[in-house]
Formats: sequence, structure tokens, C-alpha cells
Amino acid sequence: MLRLSYDGTNYHGWQRQPGQRTVQGVLENCLARVTGGFEKLIASSRTDAGAHALDQVVNFYTLSHLTPMTMARALNSLLPRDIVVREASLASEGFHARYSAKSKLYLYLILNRPYLSPFYSRYSWHISYPLDMNKIARAANFLRGRHDFSSFRAASCNAKTTIRHISRLELEERDSFLLFWIGANAFLQHMVRNIVGTLVEVGRGRHAPEYMEEVLLARDRTKAGPTAPAQGLFLYHVDYEII
Amino acid sequence: MLRLSYDGTNYHGWQRQPGQRTVQGVLENCLARVTGGFEKLIASSRTDAGAHALDQVVNFYTLSHLTPMTMARALNSLLPRDIVVREASLASEGFHARYSAKSKLYLYLILNRPYLSPFYSRYSWHISYPLDMNKIARAANFLRGRHDFSSFRAASCNAKTTIRHISRLELEERDSFLLFWIGANAFLQHMVRNIVGTLVEVGRGRHAPEYMEEVLLARDRTKAGPTAPAQGLFLYHVDYEII
Repeated sequence: MLRLSYDGTNYHGWQRQPGQRTVQGVLENCLARVTGGFEKLIASSRTDAGAHALDQVVNFYTLSHLTPMTMARALNSLLPRDIVVREASLASEGFHARYSAKSKLYLYLILNRPYLSPFYSRYSWHISYPLDMNKIARAANFLRGRHDFSSFRAASCNAKTTIRHISRLELEERDSFLLFWIGANAFLQHMVRNIVGTLVEVGRGRHAPEYMEEVLLARDRTKAGPTAPAQGLFLYHVDYEII
Repeated sequence: MLRLSYDGTNYHGWQRQPGQRTVQGVLENCLARVTGGFEKLIASSRTDAGAHALDQVVNFYTLSHLTPMTMARALNSLLPRDIVVREASLASEGFHARYSAKSKLYLYLILNRPYLSPFYSRYSWHISYPLDMNKIARAANFLRGRHDFSSFRAASCNAKTTIRHISRLELEERDSFLLFWIGANAFLQHMVRNIVGTLVEVGRGRHAPEYMEEVLLARDRTKAGPTAPAQGLFLYHVDYEII
């Protein structure tokens, strides 16, 4: 099992795709060299093109006798500087980085001021118009708990059920940054970005906070706001049951 | 007068040089388009290749009738995303971004843990070996105040006097980051990077803290430690007398 951080700016998302540079593709190439062979690499989450991870968890099978620490060091010496192995350990029998996940926490970062930051343009959504944080907080209240999140699902999402449980939805202001912390048992494709896009529509005054409830009940993607850009999104942490 | 932030990663430093992409070069090209003409652009500091600025101050003369705010907006729409105008205002008569500066504050950032951060590799010096912060703090004590800093001066430095007054030298630990805050009336070329490089030599145990006093008194560049890499250095703030 590996815990990875990566800057997704120069990748076409997590998932291996022919002809595209993806995080999985680059990791698998290095992993093949380090282990001599591995199978069934599974990740907790397929992050979007341009989105980042502070804690992506992956597992795989290998016959390599390297210790996890040696493997981590060897990987870090081969990987480009925008992908880093933070931790490596032997996974328990039956561990599955995706299905064993109990909950995931995403961070979405908005820079809300008239001018850009040269250091955060790849790591945040820059919004120059003012946002009403009170309205955003009131709209967010409708989303906590167990709901059908069909309205916030990408057209290409192929999840079997659209019921998810949002256990945490917090807003934080730090200087000119707005941080959205969204934790749930699992997420639909683009769910965080569609939620943030809709909250921003409320924050800029295009809809009242109560509009969020309407959107949720409509179960219709066309009701929600635009998809917030990927570069503000961070897979922040994945929690597993201690087996 | 403009206050700028920039990510220096893709620039060969501040100062305009033939055949090199520099921050001054890129800014001056945009400024010429926005103002129709300007003269005598002066910056508070010539930042090194790869070093960054949160608050670089520049002044210039122009006959343009644009208001400072209009000028700032026009510049920001032309500048690449790694250079940002934060503020623009009319300078007082006789203001000189370099000579009117009362003090400057630099931040030097070290990431001290075994593995890199994909988000900070362009913005910090990654040191994987442990550093003794107590020893570094004791060594730093010798530097505060008015001294001849010849030992920390680059060979190419052409300052007339090597006496500088360090008014602030603070160490801060935030998670795995070490922040060095160094404020002085003015700095010699590479002074911050040479000080940090020498402090790190003490922190890793190559020299006792008292070595710092020896280096200072020697007035000899060959006594000090290696120059810390530019990517950890930020020109953080420039203070001016209120005239």
C-alpha cells in the first residue's frame, strides 16, 4: 500500500489512458522497474485532469521482496518531482484501496480577491468578484447528511447508486482564501466540483441559499451550477476501517 | 509605484539581460504597451534567478494619464500568470524603490523531512537529513545587529560597504517546514542564501553554533557554508519611510 501526493497540473488525471500522460501511467512505469512486476493496482479515487492529491492511496500485488521503505525510496528516486510517495506499508489481506475506504475528505481552494497569486494559480480557482460567505454557509447546510446527489453528478458518471452521505462540509477563510472541506463515505464523479460551482453561484447572488435544496431535490444535473475548475481540487485524506 | 509578486521559477532573475527571460524584461515589455512609454524603472531588489517575490517594489516615470488602478488591471491582463501586480499608486516626488527602502524582509523556506512535497519543490530547499533547531537558533544569535557581512557576500557583489544591520532573524517551525525570517536595512548579494547555507551546516552538526561568530569575524567568503538554493528564497516585504 502506498500513500502518494501529487501535483496534477501536468497530468491528464489519475487513470491510465492510451496516449495521455496520467499519474497512474507514470507511477506504474516506475513501479514495474522497482518491483520487477506487480498486478491489480487499485487507487482510492480517480482524480480529474488537473486535480491534485495530498493523500492518494493505492494497493497492488507483487512478488518483490523489497521492504516497503526500500520500495518507497526507490520509487521517489525514479518518479518526477510532482509525484511523491509519502508512505509505504504492507496491506492487510483483502485490503482494497477503493472499496475498503470508509470516507474521503476533499479540499477545494478558492482565491477570492481582485488579483491572482503567482504561487496559487495552479492550485486554486481565482474568483475576483465578491462572495457572500453567509449565503454560501446557509446553502451548504442543505447538503450535509444522506441524500441523492444526482444533480451533482457528471454525465459520464457510472456509479450504481447516487445516494451519498456527506459527513463534513466546512467553510474556512484564511486571508483571501476560501477553503471548502467536504467529507463523505464516497463521491460521484465531479460531485465536489459541481457542489462548489453551485455554492459559488449562491455566493455571488445568482440564487438564494434555499436554491440548493431545490437543486438537490430535482435530481437533475442541469439544475446545478457550473463545474468548478479542477485545479482547486485536492484529494486530502482517505480513511480506512482498522481491520 | 507598483508592488509585484512573482514566481521566479521560469525567470533568470529580476534584472534585464540580453537573451534571457527575466522578470524585469517581461514587465518592461508589458509596461511599454500599457503606458506608451516610461523611463528609469527601478526595483527595490535584484532577486536571483529562481528566487521569488511576494512584494517587489518598482517605480518609474511616465507621461501616461492612466490611473494607477487602470494601469494595474491592464498590466495584469497582459502579464503571464507568474507575475502579478498587487498594488499600484502614484509615488511621491523623489521616491526611489531602492534607495528609499528603510528595510527589507526576506523569507527562506526549508522543507525538512525525508520525502519531497510535489507542491513545494519549486518553493523550498528540501533537506532530508535532520537539523538541530536549537543549534541553528544559537548560531543565528551571532548575526543580529550591525556587522561586517563580507563573509556572506557573493564574489560578484559590488556593494561599496559590507556593513549591514540585521534587525530581525527569526526561526519558525510549521509542520515539516522551517521558515527563516531575515530583515535588514539592506542586503549584500547572496547574503540571505549564504547565511542560511551556513546555518544549515551548523544544524546538521558540521560546526558548533559558535562557528558563526568565527565566520562573521573572518570577513572571508570561503569560511561560510555553501549558498542555499535560490528556490527557497522570497523577497517578502519592503518598508519605506513615510515621507
